[in-house]
Amino acid sequence: MDQNALKKMAADRAAEFVEDGMTLGLGTGSTVHYLVEAIARRVQAEHLHIQGVSTSSRTEDQARGLGITMVGIDDVDHIDLTIDGADEIDQHFQGIKGGGAAHTLEKMVALTSAQNIWIVDQSKLVDTLGAFPLPTEVIPFGHTQVERRLAAEGLNPEWRRDDQGQLVTTHNGNYVLDLHVGKIAHPHLLAQFLDAQTGILEHGLFLDIVNKVVVGTPDGTQVLNAGR
Amino acid sequence: MDQNALKKMAADRAAEFVEDGMTLGLGTGSTVHYLVEAIARRVQAEHLHIQGVSTSSRTEDQARGLGITMVGIDDVDHIDLTIDGADEIDQHFQGIKGGGAAHTLEKMVALTSAQNIWIVDQSKLVDTLGAFPLPTEVIPFGHTQVERRLAAEGLNPEWRRDDQGQLVTTHNGNYVLDLHVGKIAHPHLLAQFLDAQTGILEHGLFLDIVNKVVVGTPDGTQVLNAGR
Repeated sequence: MDQNALKKMAADRAAEFVEDGMTLGLGTGSTVHYLVEAIARRVQAEHLHIQGVSTSSRTEDQARGLGITMVGIDDVDHIDLTIDGADEIDQHFQGIKGGGAAHTLEKMVALTSAQNIWIVDQSKLVDTLGAFPLPTEVIPFGHTQVERRLAAEGLNPEWRRDDQGQLVTTHNGNYVLDLHVGKIAHPHLLAQFLDAQTGILEHGLFLDIVNKVVVGTPDGTQVLNAGR
Repeated sequence: MDQNALKKMAADRAAEFVEDGMTLGLGTGSTVHYLVEAIARRVQAEHLHIQGVSTSSRTEDQARGLGITMVGIDDVDHIDLTIDGADEIDQHFQGIKGGGAAHTLEKMVALTSAQNIWIVDQSKLVDTLGAFPLPTEVIPFGHTQVERRLAAEGLNPEWRRDDQGQLVTTHNGNYVLDLHVGKIAHPHLLAQFLDAQTGILEHGLFLDIVNKVVVGTPDGTQVLNAGR
């Protein structure tokens, strides 16, 4: 089964957790694309009343186009459930996100949400985080100073560039500095270090956040409970 | 003696710490205006070769106009000395800055700098920080969620507005949320809490940063050494 089929299967399973009346957080990326389609089918078939909050204009446009009511994150007082992808998940259900350069907005939505579900194919499950480069979002003013500080800490920073070699910029107009750490032995300590760095708006460590992980495998879909 | 005279006197004294060959960080505000004038006089009289890095276009324009070479923070590999104002300094030489909404850039310059001097009039010296509202810089996406979280922590957040009632925006396009804390008993713990908040780019607590404080008083200028 190809990766897209695994993603679609997992997205369909995750959509079953949506309940009538919910305010939903919707992430970004190819898996979320399948998710929005699956939710839209349920909304139409079961006449669900839901509203969505999104971290990307692409997801927002897709959802609206399929008849899902979309509102801004600053127009709601809570989110019931957020469903999003993830780039890496370790055995303690800690994660890395930000492959799409939207981790700051995704973390904001995730933290506003009472429950979080991540949808992944099984290749994203790892023992220890860090093979996936850890994204950080850095403001332009002083960005070379941030790079220098992180390099001095041995964090192997590398600016993310597009196909034309230009620096990738985020929704907030900032740059993305990927940390090639290899293995992140102590994610909470690294998070604390990065949180304290002036010039870093946000990093891609999503710790103690996810409640359930829906995994697409060739043998079917698994739902893993994080126990939180 | 009026406050401007005290500021000017302290700025003149601080300018004496500038040495030939230095890369200087120059802050923002009325005291720094006097400082730049004083440095420019020394550059001309003593033929000093210095270059400046600034956090504000106003300071940059003023300095250039007076013949001081200005460069960007991302064009230098270090800063020798930064001289800036401060909004509050406690007895342990911890400070609050950000009354001018530029605390993120000011902190970036301060942390890139080997030495930091703050110039203040004596009204800025306090036993405990917190009477001056603590500025935070918050990204627009999800800013009401940040406000809600800080309010729930009892930090009395209030959006900074201009004379027309519009939200003040920073150089980075973000909002300023002032925390009316009253007394900050444990500045390091508060800093750690704020550092960890998604959506807050930076707060105005400047901890363990300043090396010397130049204080203008009606009886003359005092130089206080922070012992770091």
